Amino acid sequence: MSNHPEGSADSNPDSPDAAGSPDAPDAPAAASRVVRRTFLGSAAAAAAVAGIAGFTGGRAIGAPRPAPRSAPGGRGIDPDVSEDLARKLLLVGENGEDLKLQYLRILIDDQLPGRAPHKKVLIVGAGVAGLAAAALLKKAGHEVVVIEANASRVGGRVKTFRSFKDKALYAEAGAMRLPDFHPLVRALSDKLGLKRQLFYNADVAPGAEPTGTVPPVTYQAFTGETWTNGTDDLTFKSPAAVGRRLIRVNGISTTRAAYDAAPAQVNSSFGVDSAATMAEAVNEALKPVTVASEGSINDQIEAWATIFQKYDDHSTRRFLVEEAGWDQNRIQAAGTLENLTSRLHYSLVPTLMDHAAIKPTNRYWELVGGTDTLTEAMAAPLRNDIRMGRRMTRLVQTDTGVRIETTAESGTEDSHDGAPIEPTEVFEGDYAIVTIPFSALRFCSVEPLMSYPKRRAVNELHYDSATKVLLEFKTRFWEQGPNGFTGGGCTSDSASRFTYLPSHSPAGSPGGVVLASYSWADDAFRWDSLTESERYTFALDDMERLFGPVVRSEYAGVGATQSWARARYALGEAVIFTPGQLHELHAATRTVEGRVHFAGEHTSLKPAWIEGALESAVRAFLEVHPR
Amino acid sequence: MSNHPEGSADSNPDSPDAAGSPDAPDAPAAASRVVRRTFLGSAAAAAAVAGIAGFTGGRAIGAPRPAPRSAPGGRGIDPDVSEDLARKLLLVGENGEDLKLQYLRILIDDQLPGRAPHKKVLIVGAGVAGLAAAALLKKAGHEVVVIEANASRVGGRVKTFRSFKDKALYAEAGAMRLPDFHPLVRALSDKLGLKRQLFYNADVAPGAEPTGTVPPVTYQAFTGETWTNGTDDLTFKSPAAVGRRLIRVNGISTTRAAYDAAPAQVNSSFGVDSAATMAEAVNEALKPVTVASEGSINDQIEAWATIFQKYDDHSTRRFLVEEAGWDQNRIQAAGTLENLTSRLHYSLVPTLMDHAAIKPTNRYWELVGGTDTLTEAMAAPLRNDIRMGRRMTRLVQTDTGVRIETTAESGTEDSHDGAPIEPTEVFEGDYAIVTIPFSALRFCSVEPLMSYPKRRAVNELHYDSATKVLLEFKTRFWEQGPNGFTGGGCTSDSASRFTYLPSHSPAGSPGGVVLASYSWADDAFRWDSLTESERYTFALDDMERLFGPVVRSEYAGVGATQSWARARYALGEAVIFTPGQLHELHAATRTVEGRVHFAGEHTSLKPAWIEGALESAVRAFLEVHPR
Repeated sequence: MSNHPEGSADSNPDSPDAAGSPDAPDAPAAASRVVRRTFLGSAAAAAAVAGIAGFTGGRAIGAPRPAPRSAPGGRGIDPDVSEDLARKLLLVGENGEDLKLQYLRILIDDQLPGRAPHKKVLIVGAGVAGLAAAALLKKAGHEVVVIEANASRVGGRVKTFRSFKDKALYAEAGAMRLPDFHPLVRALSDKLGLKRQLFYNADVAPGAEPTGTVPPVTYQAFTGETWTNGTDDLTFKSPAAVGRRLIRVNGISTTRAAYDAAPAQVNSSFGVDSAATMAEAVNEALKPVTVASEGSINDQIEAWATIFQKYDDHSTRRFLVEEAGWDQNRIQAAGTLENLTSRLHYSLVPTLMDHAAIKPTNRYWELVGGTDTLTEAMAAPLRNDIRMGRRMTRLVQTDTGVRIETTAESGTEDSHDGAPIEPTEVFEGDYAIVTIPFSALRFCSVEPLMSYPKRRAVNELHYDSATKVLLEFKTRFWEQGPNGFTGGGCTSDSASRFTYLPSHSPAGSPGGVVLASYSWADDAFRWDSLTESERYTFALDDMERLFGPVVRSEYAGVGATQSWARARYALGEAVIFTPGQLHELHAATRTVEGRVHFAGEHTSLKPAWIEGALESAVRAFLEVHPR
Repeated sequence: MSNHPEGSADSNPDSPDAAGSPDAPDAPAAASRVVRRTFLGSAAAAAAVAGIAGFTGGRAIGAPRPAPRSAPGGRGIDPDVSEDLARKLLLVGENGEDLKLQYLRILIDDQLPGRAPHKKVLIVGAGVAGLAAAALLKKAGHEVVVIEANASRVGGRVKTFRSFKDKALYAEAGAMRLPDFHPLVRALSDKLGLKRQLFYNADVAPGAEPTGTVPPVTYQAFTGETWTNGTDDLTFKSPAAVGRRLIRVNGISTTRAAYDAAPAQVNSSFGVDSAATMAEAVNEALKPVTVASEGSINDQIEAWATIFQKYDDHSTRRFLVEEAGWDQNRIQAAGTLENLTSRLHYSLVPTLMDHAAIKPTNRYWELVGGTDTLTEAMAAPLRNDIRMGRRMTRLVQTDTGVRIETTAESGTEDSHDGAPIEPTEVFEGDYAIVTIPFSALRFCSVEPLMSYPKRRAVNELHYDSATKVLLEFKTRFWEQGPNGFTGGGCTSDSASRFTYLPSHSPAGSPGGVVLASYSWADDAFRWDSLTESERYTFALDDMERLFGPVVRSEYAGVGATQSWARARYALGEAVIFTPGQLHELHAATRTVEGRVHFAGEHTSLKPAWIEGALESAVRAFLEVHPR
């Protein structure tokens, strides 16, 4: 269990899990008609148009929101806000429609809304959200200009390394797996002709292959309709997980299967006297606050609203201590084995949202050729509409349009320092969609001042750290011998924390690239201070502790590393809420400021996921198109 | 109010403040004899020697602590642990002695303990703690070797920039002010012949000078004794604060004095309807949990123990919402004006510790010539004992000694990547004192495994971010005209957040170096992603918003910047506890592991302060010397 998507420490595929997934393809129909509460007509709608209202020039612009904590509810949280957030999470539209279904029809089936006044839209950022919004607007007949700071590539936090000795090898700096419960990204990949193959979160026997035909994407809407992009011949079967991936904590080396079969020794090394695995313990602790996707959508809305109301204020640690009654040793054991430790002080809500979505039976997919084949394919029809190497410095809007000033970027995205700044280039349009992270927007001048809630969100939204260290090996030594395995993530209490072996290597490549260290939050913070060569040295040391001296002889001498906290265009991995931020900041991330709209993972309730970026892009398109 | 020392947003010097300081020189005598509770004989003492007990080689070494949260007390916290922490905070020795007094006599008066067996001690890290411990051990007749990773300087997080156009100018990358309530560091500076001058936390009129003789350091022990390093002629008087330093939030520009006189407009721009300043509001909120230094030491121990027990689990935000009853707008107003926002999710305890120590009447000092004149003076007698450019990679201890393996460092501390690693150099000794941050120790191999509690502390202790951007100006334009002022920190809701004007510029220098941006935690995180030149550009933009276009014409084109989160030997600014870490991790930071001892700010209860590093150094010296 993990509170971040790419942080998903592998769930035990054999353990029971009561969690459902809000948009899993196999979720049973929950078809009862949604009774829409009209709170969107009040606070949220007012906030949605708050921006331009403060458009009076000068000082103290943008009214602060009415102090929401004085409203009734748990610790003063307005229950209407909690319900609004639950509906946003579950993608329930204003008229009870299933927005995910709507988004699939728009993004995948090209069922665009009716004609609207022609306009020119400036889109800031050529990541997933910016590219998707631009493509939709262009298809709908509008003129788009996508302004991208990076001079060398599009894609944002989708980024594939291709800098290895074996030129056939590649590895992911960012997003690396597409889950079953995310239909938009899988269907978009299919539509663009990209090939999916399984990503093994849990290891399989070397040489094991799935059987049958890769199934299409199927989405069961809560309104009863089913969306699919093909016909499932039901022949596809994943290879079985074998559980040989390694665990090494407190000086004990074992495998996942051995731990699952007899957890006591590892548990007792943390001072925990329990015959249950820590994955089971986490499931048990979260069961009372896990919303099943089986109930009616109204029941789900109510359940999530209640949980948000009660627990947004709680850190994960607070919940485990005060509600689940865990002692420190259990927190440390589960924290180490199930990737909770570094984020204990964050809000419980992200943990719960992931826990509800991620089932042990979920399959994950990867794109053959690398995740950036997706963003490259998305960008291809927009090549003439994208301005690379222009970083926004200032955005000015008037009653009639939007002006964006940019500066030239000629360095690389990793360069320790940039080239001298060239004269400003200015773009003008009717509307803008800003998709860059708020951590980046913090350094742009926006005039007139945006609304108070939006400014707070820009200033305060917490961004997580996430850092990868990848190492190339001449052979896939971990696949050799009776204990060999393919794919899966090893877990340790070393600085490296999580080590993912590749699910596939390109045909003919004897070697492979190992994600030797993947860490988040405080665990990543320690790596973020290091130079690249230090990271390779330390990650190799830790891999030797897992696999022995073979690691040194097989190391190809080449690595790649990505610290998202140090990435100068990303300024962090992705949003993750600290306690209270869901209620205090989320709604304002997506409100419209006059002629300026907002998209990106940080404006969705699937932060850090491509799926969230895509949802936000369709939403922003639907906002802008009819204006 | 701030929960970090260098984060001290200027308190309003005119506002009332009930807070006392635990070791302020003017604290009244609290002479009643301390009745020592003997809990140190139980859990804490057991932990103090836990390390070598697990010295059995192989696996699962180091017994986990007995689950302390199952003990009685608030949410399962053992009250003896809370009391132990209170005694550590207040520097109450095992026999009720005043440890601060003892440390002054040892460090300043050279009153060393009696002779002990001669030994060779390896000291890892030539920061304040390492240098102080080495000097004491050497004076006591032992052989010392100080192993320092940095090839170019000692001092650690004491670092002075001297890279400006005007060669007389300098500015601090790290520690920049020595408070009245820290006698060790001031007395050590005096002893080393360094000259102190006032650091103006609150601005004064340009040209204003203190009158009289700089007072000596005086410490009033809670046992009744007074320690001093001179005779106070009582003539010294600081110039009056004028409150012209700027505030710019929500588009409103004002001064600190204007805000203090009429806070309503600024407050209402946050949606707060209050005629009290936010400094007053913070004082009011914290009053019930602020321990006055006036009571007997036993009363203080009990008061702190109760607070630790009750609130270590609380984030600052949780306290403000649930105990002080603050709404979101008030949290945002006080958070912005009093530097709380970026650290709301950290433990309340650091906030309370600072609040108790920092009074508006406290004076702060700086060292003429730069703070690194202190560490250079400390290092001078150790020049032949310090090995520069050797970074510890492995520490192995046996029953008879300690071996430390190092690698050569020939790059600079800021280099994006290091030189190729040279062969190992090995140091051997009888004992070791490890003073490097735990974030750095995380990447060293320690054999055999240290105790479980120590390993948890190394893995999990939270380190804060702190980032400075300094800009050189040709003239001190901010001192000109009727609104001119010297020193003090301006506050804004821009990315720069806090802007400190220099208290002094060297004689003959027409210009000065401005600390254009000083930020922490989430505020710093955003700067940490940027390149150096980007930081200068953005900080200059923000300064223009404060002071107008004169900023551009007077900019000398030279800056300096320090991100402690990105510093490859520091790996963070300093320890700051997330909720629960005080009880769960602090005691283990300083326990002895066999022949290995620990010092550094992170092992003290004055984290981030030079004073804490000095306290830890004397403590470690007293542990090692008699062995």
